[in-house]
Amino acid sequence: MSEVVIDDGGLEQPLTQADYEALAQFRYALRQFTAFSDDMLASVNLGPRRYQAMLAIKAHKGATAISVGELARILLIRPNTAAELVNRLELAGLIERVKDPHDRRRALLALTPEGSRRLAEIAEIHFNKLREHRAAFLSLFAGQSESLADGASPKPNGSGYISMATGQAA
Amino acid sequence: MSEVVIDDGGLEQPLTQADYEALAQFRYALRQFTAFSDDMLASVNLGPRRYQAMLAIKAHKGATAISVGELARILLIRPNTAAELVNRLELAGLIERVKDPHDRRRALLALTPEGSRRLAEIAEIHFNKLREHRAAFLSLFAGQSESLADGASPKPNGSGYISMATGQAA
Repeated sequence: MSEVVIDDGGLEQPLTQADYEALAQFRYALRQFTAFSDDMLASVNLGPRRYQAMLAIKAHKGATAISVGELARILLIRPNTAAELVNRLELAGLIERVKDPHDRRRALLALTPEGSRRLAEIAEIHFNKLREHRAAFLSLFAGQSESLADGASPKPNGSGYISMATGQAA
Repeated sequence: MSEVVIDDGGLEQPLTQADYEALAQFRYALRQFTAFSDDMLASVNLGPRRYQAMLAIKAHKGATAISVGELARILLIRPNTAAELVNRLELAGLIERVKDPHDRRRALLALTPEGSRRLAEIAEIHFNKLREHRAAFLSLFAGQSESLADGASPKPNGSGYISMATGQAA
């Protein structure tokens, strides 16, 4: 087994206690991040799905803006659900539909100036939170690159969980 | 303000387009991992919360086994909810209550041999999945340690998203 590539059929080697701890820490970080994000978004009256849709529209890297179908695929939701989400975001003045230059029947999605402004504020808070507390996520990958974990946030102690809320062991 | 507390006033430097893309990729990885995990757990008739509880019991690093109260805190659920979850896991023969050697009135939690066996199978699948597709999670932290991203999974192209399902760009 190479030091970077994981062997998929790797059932030959059972997980170590440290592996279980890393998995548990990763899950804890996910729960904390999701709770932080949901609370933060609720405080600005934006649901998690709306934020994620706006983020996907902003981050789209194709030759044109993103379509409703592509948005559905990236959000892992059904096209009908994506269409309803887009309608609500449009009604809220956060996004707008623009014509696809290559296919006039197809609508593409763009943030409005108001949508861009609101996304910028919200995304920055998420971005800073994640980068400050990266150690909570990276413990799972630490065996593959110790340097990252070493340069990151406080080590866990006591119960072993790094709290995302404080950066201290929970 | 201590160094671990989020500086909310950090608006001095707006996010770059690459930052938005990294945030979007991270969210996409989270959605894919959650969907993968939920499907995988459903296929073995175990809910996400039950799996996470078993993982937390296994990974606990305290002087004694974990208590129901500690489990609630780590799962970010209410004590009553944790108590019900523990009851269901006990009924299913996956965990058992053991007496706290320091406080006979307090129950601590341990996996049964059957619980350990099932957790080992399930946790290993999650562990391998996450480590194989670490690039999808690590793009957010790449600017802080390029080496990890460089040595990791396929780079995105086209729409820019690394698919966790295939390891290829989605």
